[in-house]
Amino acid sequence: MNRYRKAAVLGIIVLGVFACALLTGDSAVAGKKKSFGTGTIIPPVPVWVIGSYDTDGKPNMMTASWVGICCSDPASVTVSIRESRYSYINILATRSFTVNIPSKKYAAETAFFGTVSGRDVDKLAATGLTAVKGEHVNAPYLAEFPLVVECRVSTMVPVGSHTMFIGEIVDIKVDESVLDENGMPDPMKVSPFLFCPGSNGFYGTSELIGRVGELQRKIKR
Amino acid sequence: MNRYRKAAVLGIIVLGVFACALLTGDSAVAGKKKSFGTGTIIPPVPVWVIGSYDTDGKPNMMTASWVGICCSDPASVTVSIRESRYSYINILATRSFTVNIPSKKYAAETAFFGTVSGRDVDKLAATGLTAVKGEHVNAPYLAEFPLVVECRVSTMVPVGSHTMFIGEIVDIKVDESVLDENGMPDPMKVSPFLFCPGSNGFYGTSELIGRVGELQRKIKR
Repeated sequence: MNRYRKAAVLGIIVLGVFACALLTGDSAVAGKKKSFGTGTIIPPVPVWVIGSYDTDGKPNMMTASWVGICCSDPASVTVSIRESRYSYINILATRSFTVNIPSKKYAAETAFFGTVSGRDVDKLAATGLTAVKGEHVNAPYLAEFPLVVECRVSTMVPVGSHTMFIGEIVDIKVDESVLDENGMPDPMKVSPFLFCPGSNGFYGTSELIGRVGELQRKIKR
Repeated sequence: MNRYRKAAVLGIIVLGVFACALLTGDSAVAGKKKSFGTGTIIPPVPVWVIGSYDTDGKPNMMTASWVGICCSDPASVTVSIRESRYSYINILATRSFTVNIPSKKYAAETAFFGTVSGRDVDKLAATGLTAVKGEHVNAPYLAEFPLVVECRVSTMVPVGSHTMFIGEIVDIKVDESVLDENGMPDPMKVSPFLFCPGSNGFYGTSELIGRVGELQRKIKR
C-alpha cells in the first residue's frame, strides 16, 4: 500500500512538471505570433530632420523616418520623401540636403517639422532655430542640433508613394560638447531618439548594452 | 560721490551679465562643430536580423544596420548587403528575406549573426535559435524574436560597396506577449536596441518621450 502511495505521489509530481513545462515552455521560448498583414509598424526607426533650400533660397526643415544609411563606400544615406512635399521640390532642384540628428530636448521642434509644411509656415521662424548654410552643399543645417551631415544627391529611386533620395555623405559635423574622450561622438551625449510607427511616439536611447566585438564572443562556434 | 559709486556698481553688474551671456550663450545654444569628413558615424541606426535560405534550403541569419523603411505604399523596406556576403547570394536566388527585430536579451546572438559567415558556421545551431519557414515567402524567420517581417524583393539598387534590396512587406508577425492594450506592438515590451556606428555599440531603447501629435502642439505657428 505504501509502495503504491509512493508511486502515485511520484506520478503526480512527474505529471505536474510536464504540465508546467507545457504551459510555460512555449510562451517563454517563442511566443504565439499575431499576424498584422502588410504595413510599416516596425519599431524603432531613426528620426532625421532634413534641411533644404527652396527656389527663393529660404531654408526649410522636414522630419523623416523612412531613412537610413545605405552604403559604406561611397558613404551614403537614403531619405524617402513623397512627391507632394515641399522638400521634394527643393531637393530635386538643388540636388542637396542635410541630415540633422535632434537630441531629446528638441523633440517638440522635431515633431513640428514633421507635421506642418514649409509652404504654409516659416518653420525656422516658428521654432527659433538657426539655419546655417552648408559648407560643401547647397542646403542648410541646424546650428543647435548636435550632429549634422551634408549630402549630395547621387540617385533617385521611385518606390511607390515615396521616392528614395540617395545622398552621398560629403561631411559630418559634430558638436565638440558631445564628443567622448577619444574624440568620437558619444551616443549618450548626442541623446538621439527614435520613432516607433504604430504607437506614433518618440522614444529615448538608453545605456550601452555592449560592443559588438565583445558581445559576439559570448556565443560558442 | 555716492551717486557715482552707485552708477559704477550698476555698470559693473550690467557688464558682468553681458559677459556671462556672451561666454555661455553660444555654447548653450549651438556648440562649435568638429568636421569628420565623409563616413557613416550617424547614430543611432536600427539592428535587423535578415533571414534567408541558401540553395540547399539551409536557413541563415545575418545582422544588418544599413537598413530602413523606405515606402508606405507599397509598404517596403531597404536592406543593404555587400556582394561578398552569403546572404546576398541567397536573397538573389530566392527573391525573399525576413526582417527579425531582436529584443535586448538577444544582443549576443545578434552580434554573432553579424560577425561570422553562414558559409563557415551553422549560425542557428550555434545560437540554438529556431528558424521557422515563412508563411508567404521563401525565407525563414526566428521564432524567438518578438517581431518578424516577411518580404519579397521588388527591386535591387547597386550603390557602391553595397546593393540595396528593396523588399515589399508581405506580413508582419508580432508576439502576443509584446502587444499593448490596443493590440498594437508596445515598443517597451519589444525592447529593441540600436547600433551606433563609431562606438560600434548596441544601445537600448528607453521611455516614451511623447506622441508626435501632442509634441508638435508645443510650437506656436
